[in-house]
Amino acid sequence: MSAARETHIRVSEIFGPTIQGEGILIGLPTVFVRTGGCDYRCSWCDTLHAVDSDYRDQWHPMSVDDIWQEVVRLSGNKPLTVSLSGGNPAIQPLRPLLERGHEDGYRFALETQGSVAKDWFADLDVLVLSPKPPSSGMETDWSAFGACLRMAGKKPQLALKIVIFDDRDYLYARAAAARYPRLPVYLQPGNHTPPPPADDDAKVDIDGIMDRMRWLIDKVTEDRWFEARVLPQLHVLLWGNKRGV
Amino acid sequence: MSAARETHIRVSEIFGPTIQGEGILIGLPTVFVRTGGCDYRCSWCDTLHAVDSDYRDQWHPMSVDDIWQEVVRLSGNKPLTVSLSGGNPAIQPLRPLLERGHEDGYRFALETQGSVAKDWFADLDVLVLSPKPPSSGMETDWSAFGACLRMAGKKPQLALKIVIFDDRDYLYARAAAARYPRLPVYLQPGNHTPPPPADDDAKVDIDGIMDRMRWLIDKVTEDRWFEARVLPQLHVLLWGNKRGV
Repeated sequence: MSAARETHIRVSEIFGPTIQGEGILIGLPTVFVRTGGCDYRCSWCDTLHAVDSDYRDQWHPMSVDDIWQEVVRLSGNKPLTVSLSGGNPAIQPLRPLLERGHEDGYRFALETQGSVAKDWFADLDVLVLSPKPPSSGMETDWSAFGACLRMAGKKPQLALKIVIFDDRDYLYARAAAARYPRLPVYLQPGNHTPPPPADDDAKVDIDGIMDRMRWLIDKVTEDRWFEARVLPQLHVLLWGNKRGV
Repeated sequence: MSAARETHIRVSEIFGPTIQGEGILIGLPTVFVRTGGCDYRCSWCDTLHAVDSDYRDQWHPMSVDDIWQEVVRLSGNKPLTVSLSGGNPAIQPLRPLLERGHEDGYRFALETQGSVAKDWFADLDVLVLSPKPPSSGMETDWSAFGACLRMAGKKPQLALKIVIFDDRDYLYARAAAARYPRLPVYLQPGNHTPPPPADDDAKVDIDGIMDRMRWLIDKVTEDRWFEARVLPQLHVLLWGNKRGV
């Protein structure tokens, strides 16, 4: 592997501008840079095309220049917030991309499960940590998670975002929030009809998602967890599982 | 009218906790105190039962003690953010309510069109100013609006929220945001099927609302208005026009 290749970023897709559909930046126009590859394999992953190595031939190693050219083209050279997602974008060498974008006045929000800490987290504008609850089949390494927060330091705006499928997930979310009482918490009902990786037009069960929203709102309010925000995946309500919007 | 009566607050309804469905606090559990009476009469008002004086027999003059007792009961005596809405809550004598709630550790968010400025705005935790676009049939008094911001001062978190029905409303929103470039902006497609005041179970056109969301997102992104957030009325998606949720 050449030195140049080591600085390349594995990209699954770049698209937008569209609105951020989830969490702390919900509703905000953004361009997404979705990286390919993940150290997790959640049972209900809704972006398998960026996770499952069967799809790695669709991930393109791109230079910072090439990525940046595409972001600038999509945004018409007008600064906005770029959302770095995946897969787990933390496993990519993103520091030079942040430097390049900041020079042009853009902002960066990154979402990761918190399993891999990088010192360039300190250069982010927003860091969303999304630890995965028991229904994912994954185990949280809280030591790695804590390292992510330490690396981020004081500059980035921080938030916890936790997907909830069931009561166990809910208890996990309460415990996670209790560990980090100063982080704002966003709860999101899981998409129980995620797209198969080869079919982004597969139907989603919107009524079921709304039932789960109402269930989660009832839980939070009955439990008097008044600091937690409950939000849907707005893009799923608007466009189903369709990619690129 | 007795002195006691002058300190009473005209209340249309108190309900919750449920999530805030709109704008800057979207998804946050809250108890709503909806006051009765409004100096505006928007053509598409979705809370006519708190605006139209035909319904004033349903508005109850309540003392701060009585309101507070109900808020504490609903929230199980656990502090949360109380949302003050209407009608126009700015025309009510709310200062003593804020004082009482703050003593107990509660927070207050108020939403008003910005037509009436009060010095107690400075005691709020969140002030959402929602100037009404041309489709409302109302005219914005920008001098009164500016007075609201001056009264609020530095303590409250401030936000602009503008309902959009058509292209003219959109241009109005752009101009309003340009007047106050430091305020975060939330755009919201209007509910074109608001409830008749006597029938809170009237059907809403969810598909039509989602069409309008997509239209507004396209407009904002094509226009490269990357600072504006576009959000639906989440409570309408969850519960239609039903009251008390």
